Amino acid sequence: MKTNPFEKYFYPKTVCVAGASSKPLSLGYELTKTVIGYGYKGKLLLVNPKAEKILGVKCFKDIQSVPDEIDLAIVMVPKVFAEDTIKQLIEKGVVSIILITAGFKETGNEGEEAEQRIIDLVKKHNVRLVGPNCMGIINTLPSISLNATFVAEKPETGSMAFCSQSGAIGAAVLNSLRETDIRFAHFISVGNKADVNENDLLRYWQSDNNINVITYYLESFVDGEGFIKNFIDGSITKPVIILKAGKTSSGMKAASSHTGAMGSSDKVVNAIIKQFGLIRAETLNDLFNTAKGFENFPSPKGNRIAAVTNAGGPAILTVDTLEKNNLKLAELTQATMTKLKEIVHPEGSLNNPVDLLPGGTAEQYKLVNEILSGDPNVDAVISVFVEPVMVKALPVIEGINSIRSDKPILQVVMPLPEFWQEYREKSMYKLPLFRNPEDPAVVISNMFSFTQNRSGKKRLNQKAALYKSDLSKFSDQFLPLRITEEFAKLYKLPVIGSLIVKSGELESLNLDFPVVIKAVGKKLIHKSEFNAVSLNIKTQVELLAEAEAIIKATAKNNAEVEGFLIQPYVKPKFELLVGGFRDSNFGPMVMFGTGGKYVEYYEDTSIRSAYLCDDDIEEMINSTKIGRIIKGVRGEKPVDIQALKEVIKNLSQMMLDNNNISECDLNPLLVSENNKMYAVDVRIKLG
Amino acid sequence: MKTNPFEKYFYPKTVCVAGASSKPLSLGYELTKTVIGYGYKGKLLLVNPKAEKILGVKCFKDIQSVPDEIDLAIVMVPKVFAEDTIKQLIEKGVVSIILITAGFKETGNEGEEAEQRIIDLVKKHNVRLVGPNCMGIINTLPSISLNATFVAEKPETGSMAFCSQSGAIGAAVLNSLRETDIRFAHFISVGNKADVNENDLLRYWQSDNNINVITYYLESFVDGEGFIKNFIDGSITKPVIILKAGKTSSGMKAASSHTGAMGSSDKVVNAIIKQFGLIRAETLNDLFNTAKGFENFPSPKGNRIAAVTNAGGPAILTVDTLEKNNLKLAELTQATMTKLKEIVHPEGSLNNPVDLLPGGTAEQYKLVNEILSGDPNVDAVISVFVEPVMVKALPVIEGINSIRSDKPILQVVMPLPEFWQEYREKSMYKLPLFRNPEDPAVVISNMFSFTQNRSGKKRLNQKAALYKSDLSKFSDQFLPLRITEEFAKLYKLPVIGSLIVKSGELESLNLDFPVVIKAVGKKLIHKSEFNAVSLNIKTQVELLAEAEAIIKATAKNNAEVEGFLIQPYVKPKFELLVGGFRDSNFGPMVMFGTGGKYVEYYEDTSIRSAYLCDDDIEEMINSTKIGRIIKGVRGEKPVDIQALKEVIKNLSQMMLDNNNISECDLNPLLVSENNKMYAVDVRIKLG
Repeated sequence: MKTNPFEKYFYPKTVCVAGASSKPLSLGYELTKTVIGYGYKGKLLLVNPKAEKILGVKCFKDIQSVPDEIDLAIVMVPKVFAEDTIKQLIEKGVVSIILITAGFKETGNEGEEAEQRIIDLVKKHNVRLVGPNCMGIINTLPSISLNATFVAEKPETGSMAFCSQSGAIGAAVLNSLRETDIRFAHFISVGNKADVNENDLLRYWQSDNNINVITYYLESFVDGEGFIKNFIDGSITKPVIILKAGKTSSGMKAASSHTGAMGSSDKVVNAIIKQFGLIRAETLNDLFNTAKGFENFPSPKGNRIAAVTNAGGPAILTVDTLEKNNLKLAELTQATMTKLKEIVHPEGSLNNPVDLLPGGTAEQYKLVNEILSGDPNVDAVISVFVEPVMVKALPVIEGINSIRSDKPILQVVMPLPEFWQEYREKSMYKLPLFRNPEDPAVVISNMFSFTQNRSGKKRLNQKAALYKSDLSKFSDQFLPLRITEEFAKLYKLPVIGSLIVKSGELESLNLDFPVVIKAVGKKLIHKSEFNAVSLNIKTQVELLAEAEAIIKATAKNNAEVEGFLIQPYVKPKFELLVGGFRDSNFGPMVMFGTGGKYVEYYEDTSIRSAYLCDDDIEEMINSTKIGRIIKGVRGEKPVDIQALKEVIKNLSQMMLDNNNISECDLNPLLVSENNKMYAVDVRIKLG
Repeated sequence: MKTNPFEKYFYPKTVCVAGASSKPLSLGYELTKTVIGYGYKGKLLLVNPKAEKILGVKCFKDIQSVPDEIDLAIVMVPKVFAEDTIKQLIEKGVVSIILITAGFKETGNEGEEAEQRIIDLVKKHNVRLVGPNCMGIINTLPSISLNATFVAEKPETGSMAFCSQSGAIGAAVLNSLRETDIRFAHFISVGNKADVNENDLLRYWQSDNNINVITYYLESFVDGEGFIKNFIDGSITKPVIILKAGKTSSGMKAASSHTGAMGSSDKVVNAIIKQFGLIRAETLNDLFNTAKGFENFPSPKGNRIAAVTNAGGPAILTVDTLEKNNLKLAELTQATMTKLKEIVHPEGSLNNPVDLLPGGTAEQYKLVNEILSGDPNVDAVISVFVEPVMVKALPVIEGINSIRSDKPILQVVMPLPEFWQEYREKSMYKLPLFRNPEDPAVVISNMFSFTQNRSGKKRLNQKAALYKSDLSKFSDQFLPLRITEEFAKLYKLPVIGSLIVKSGELESLNLDFPVVIKAVGKKLIHKSEFNAVSLNIKTQVELLAEAEAIIKATAKNNAEVEGFLIQPYVKPKFELLVGGFRDSNFGPMVMFGTGGKYVEYYEDTSIRSAYLCDDDIEEMINSTKIGRIIKGVRGEKPVDIQALKEVIKNLSQMMLDNNNISECDLNPLLVSENNKMYAVDVRIKLG
């Protein structure tokens, strides 16, 4: 027998339901009924202190009385008995437990303590526990046929695995199966994720050959940095699609009152998902459509789309969705056009999207789809069919399904309702069909971005602790200026030289003008708000006058000037921002964009995990407006992009090396008229 | 009998089908069958040269033989006979014709000419024609019961009207009715819109008391400026929802090859739709969901949403959609919380979203929805129900449907598939239900924006031709600088004074420094690219040196310097853009945003029709990043926003008055350190 506890979760030879019930509509009854109804191939062991039999299956009084070895134990006893039941299961040597019972952490302090006691117990004995507060597990593979949930539907077999943090989302998906035609191999509801979480399942499903696509509904990440490390080290090769709820601050608030954990900002989640080649679904519909795409079609090798239709309108709605999804209309080759001319009605359209007119037949549809998918300029085909009176849908759809191509051909069908049942009953191919003109672009785009990301991304040679640093001796949140500058120079950040003097020392200085002076003082964090900065000072006389003016202006605001910082003046052509911060969930992050004092208002920044690839830096720069501008527009010379990349790379190395740095900003990172970069204000925050 | 041709389209006492056929699956047969099947209450007159009867209805040999007056003629004869048939109908005195036959403008030059001949004919006789290349008309109202399309579905009655430019989109919607539960009063497919178009239907439906909501699927506007004038003069008061396809350049290309007309940019369409209180739907689903909202629910008076659920996950997905749709979670009053405490399970959640847990009953759902909709802090309620094993869906849904409230209560239901049929058969209320957690926020937001826009927007007192202008004498595309400045000053635009001199004249000038010089010459449109500008010149010596340098730099680029423009130098704090342009479809437009030489790259502009309300200008400013910055951030004094508004208002007046101005730009409109505005570069383009 297999010893991996996850094999026992999904491929149990025996399942014990502790808390099986004889009362219809109770959860303990309905789950038992569902297990039996779906035809579980292993041995079902029911535990109930009173009943002799439930639904014809013999019951045992307690766990000790169960004669068999238990591969998987499903616990749904009242919560006051949960801990004791789990103790008994551990004594019996069970290693895979699902605790369905609710009323733990999600209900407040008392529940949280009870949950912690259970977790301490299972950790001590190296036992794994799914839940509590979850709704079960399904394996549709015919050798197992286990549906241990409350939803008595009969899911069909696919190669997708689905993990839902919300039981209700799981239930809603299961409720809809007969309409949505979602198929899967494994489903698991993980509830409070007290022990087993998304990270465990990620690694397990990667190793399970029955699984081709891994999907999640998540409200939070238990250990985001741990999750992404599986992608950084390349150990996950299967497509992973995530519907991450709690995107907006309202949604996060709702999610945190539900799951008890405040998550990362949505901007961080988005950046992480994109960077490591995961796929983010915006809706349940997108999640499962994309999964169906991976399960059933070859991945596109490019983003050039050909479309065929029997009607203009739906094709235009389809084409409208391409650009937003980084796809484009293919330019068909002349050879393709010549072939199409033989088939397409003279009043139809040979151009992409090809229009067969409402009279387009099954034969024409099949031929045109074959021709389009054979065109070297085409990476994927979308076939749109609105059922007219004179052409029946099924032969059209099946004709296209029968095409063998190494490119995906996705079909949008807008038929009379009878069609769907007919398709389910009569289709030989049962390939997924899409109902909305907007659906295929999302699927193709997601598949293409997966292909792109998994091929060719080379991770930077980032070493842990490039420089030994000991920042722990500093108690202030902000590292002192002198130390900050030295430290930044260690990482080759282009720090401009600066001098700190007391007010009285200004007169005796011997400076190379022009210079900048900035007042230094405890209350002077945002210097420009206090008029505590003066730029482009050209003479000693001007210097003293400006210092005087600053002291007066800040005095008005009750902010004492303790001294002045003096730097060479650089006339700025551009003001950039390069920075880093530590996300509570995903760890070190790096940022690039438009800098300067209006940085929050321009909202022109791009972020990534500090675990970078070369391409990531390039993408970061390109995904901002300032990034496109500094590459040289309107006849201007470009900024030294290679040097900028080094700054971003070195700052991310600093974030990786020093996990007590919570924030680091070069803002602004000035670009001078002659395209040199100067970090004129560097801040490092510890914590 | 009514004489308005549109009354005859939708309420005909007699319908004549010219081209009725006895061959099953032909369009002429199927449409006839559908008219009969749906139980048309008027008299059906069939014309077929050969058949005696079709489907039991007597046929006439030709139109002259029809004894009755014909209210509505539906022409589906082969295209070679179309013109002649229409002639006969005109002779018979018919004023309302639908030409279903295809093969006209959409197929090329020959078809276009044939279409034009028909249009000349009907215009000459004051007859109206819908089509060609369309798929018919429906009026579901029981007094008429006309389904004159090829789709033999039996649509249910509602108060919505739907106009589709695409027959296939119409067919797809009709195909789906039994699944989507879309109901409507009128449907019309307008095909090539050779005569009757969206503008005619807009005015007609506004006048028809059976219609409460007007919806469109459009690929182009026939006369955008004419369309919006109905909203400017306040003659349209009903909600108008538009799904405008051809949004992206690929989509527009696809649409134009389909309809033959290149449309306005999507940014213009979006701005227009928002400005005049129309509603834009992104998908067919959104279009009909929003229409259902208007048909069935009171409009929300604010944007504060309460949600109730029996499960966390779907509620979080719902809440996640609020912010994107300008809605927010309501703060429930203490009184509401106290009432909820009596009802909600102690392990559920009293906070918004209120969680009843899976055990939540029909009674609890009804009570909680009543309490939430009664809370003065709540403007709309979203109730989410995932069907669990132990609670049946129908009583929950019907209980909520039975609540009488002046606030909308929208329900998301995620049940087993059987529910939908049960609901259709047994529901007393038949209120629309939503299938996706994302749906209600879109509907509520659309309804709220309609309410907001239709109440309280005061149009500016814009007069036609505020100033008499005669720009027609200028043949150049760009108006000469001197004329431009004078003209701009007429409209009180803050033009900075400027002087134009020849190179040789520079020495003898007597200037107030600092100044700016710009080279003037035919090839010097984008001056900064040629280094043809020098700022902040402080002395006469500097002036001559800079002029020399410019002449050298431009000579390298083969651009001759014809002279210099000299302006006072203003140190810029901000660079704004105020501009105008004439859209080929919607007429005069005005623009505001971040200016300067990188204007295209910052993409921080907001546009509106020049037919402005006070609020429009405020919104324009607020919807840009620079607009928020100049209002004063980080302790800075705000720019004089009132003065800026005057500039925008005056420039839009200029666009309204002078319809030969195709473009006008103040870029940059400099804001100085002391917050004054200076238009240092004004360009007016004619055409």
